[in-house]
Amino acid sequence: MELVVTVAQVRAAVAKARAEGKTIGFAPTMGALHEGHLALIRRARAECGFVVVSIFVNPTQFAPGTDLEKYPRDLASDSAKAASAGADLAFAPAVEEIYPPGDSTFVEVTGQLVDCLCGPARPGHFRGVTTVCARLFHIVVPGRAYFGEKDYQQLLVIKQMVRDLHFPLAVVSVPTVREPDGLAMSSRNAYLSAEERKAAAVLSRGLFAARELFASGERDAAALIAAAKRVIAPEPRLKLQYLELRDAETLAEIKRVGGSAVLALAAYVGQARLIDNVVLG
Amino acid sequence: MELVVTVAQVRAAVAKARAEGKTIGFAPTMGALHEGHLALIRRARAECGFVVVSIFVNPTQFAPGTDLEKYPRDLASDSAKAASAGADLAFAPAVEEIYPPGDSTFVEVTGQLVDCLCGPARPGHFRGVTTVCARLFHIVVPGRAYFGEKDYQQLLVIKQMVRDLHFPLAVVSVPTVREPDGLAMSSRNAYLSAEERKAAAVLSRGLFAARELFASGERDAAALIAAAKRVIAPEPRLKLQYLELRDAETLAEIKRVGGSAVLALAAYVGQARLIDNVVLG
Repeated sequence: MELVVTVAQVRAAVAKARAEGKTIGFAPTMGALHEGHLALIRRARAECGFVVVSIFVNPTQFAPGTDLEKYPRDLASDSAKAASAGADLAFAPAVEEIYPPGDSTFVEVTGQLVDCLCGPARPGHFRGVTTVCARLFHIVVPGRAYFGEKDYQQLLVIKQMVRDLHFPLAVVSVPTVREPDGLAMSSRNAYLSAEERKAAAVLSRGLFAARELFASGERDAAALIAAAKRVIAPEPRLKLQYLELRDAETLAEIKRVGGSAVLALAAYVGQARLIDNVVLG
Repeated sequence: MELVVTVAQVRAAVAKARAEGKTIGFAPTMGALHEGHLALIRRARAECGFVVVSIFVNPTQFAPGTDLEKYPRDLASDSAKAASAGADLAFAPAVEEIYPPGDSTFVEVTGQLVDCLCGPARPGHFRGVTTVCARLFHIVVPGRAYFGEKDYQQLLVIKQMVRDLHFPLAVVSVPTVREPDGLAMSSRNAYLSAEERKAAAVLSRGLFAARELFASGERDAAALIAAAKRVIAPEPRLKLQYLELRDAETLAEIKRVGGSAVLALAAYVGQARLIDNVVLG
């Protein structure tokens, strides 16, 4: 695997692969790679001739005063993990490489998809995500781009952007990878103390309880949410930011599950803000 | 020349040309083609193996109550003109083909480039322009995209977007084409009565007077602007919206011309809003 830092290097490597007839697969990450990221890379490896992973802590998706500075960074370790999962090229640019001096352009998805769940809690976050992904897509020009279902709302926002702006690529979603106790893998799990780490497991247990109730036939939103809350609420180390059941495609509020729905949550566990979800139906 | 109306048709035609090793040249237009547009197509023809022209009256760049409905449309005539200038493919999509139902994504350049000249006069205009160009660039995937210098601010805004978002294409600017009396070619000239058409010629005459004064050594902004206004102001059929001298790259206000500057104007002539400019230095 080659590790590069400039746009020109990426373009050269990708042009060569494309000239050899290879499909370009792309997994954008912020580094601090865990098994969730590696699942994206492995899936890309299985489906594409040339696999690019970006490692870039994108400043525009962090609000002031959040965890941009302390976000975990370890390029040597990330690079080794990406290579072992089958990446051909790792792209770890400086901020100025992606956001050149005098930069003044952004890409924004508006409406229901960004006005709920993490949207109001993280003003500007999704604008930052779409803005950086548009740039990375133009740099890598992948045929297929891989995103994890753990960041479910982000996945829908990216799909919307790709569809609306006619990006010539397919967005591929990859299931959430979990720790043995159910906790969704996340780079932010590194912020947790041992006690908090243990407590955080109730998040997925709550979601799974709702999923079991759904499997047994329950379709009422309030009942499904209550089932999850019964598991989560007793844990004093958690502070739920939201726990909501929404349409799995539009994120519109629903009272009953008709087609498919997503039960999504965000919670503070100490300093860490964690998210998770299960899709029902 | 082939005339197509769907994104899929464009992608198929362009993929074939690219497989043949051809560079893709692209001239986005709103139709009502005149010699200014044909200059873009001819330049693309000279530089590229496959030339695409889009003919699409983009609704998102018109403010409510302006001339979206009455904007001239004549696809048969445009198609013949594009073919005669050397286009290989004309793309004339319906609005829903570019803006699918449920569309909610835009691309926006912010800052100095859009906060002056036509920006304040046409709220949302440049956002509409960048949003449609981003889409068309993703559909056509050109190596070179051609824009006229008549729409000078638009040209800079597109260049900024392409640079900031790392679009893998070169923006090529093509000089303004003028009528024998100097009037810049514009689809909106069709709105002019015979009297208005005659009066409109003072716009370019005013700009040329300033350019001559600049050539004779004058560098003071106020003096250059005054030279243009002395020619334009006496014409009672014109209402100047702005006439300003700005840095040719940043559009920052300048008191004296150091490097290069653009003297740009917008004026109402009857119902028609016309723009023009000359670059000094």
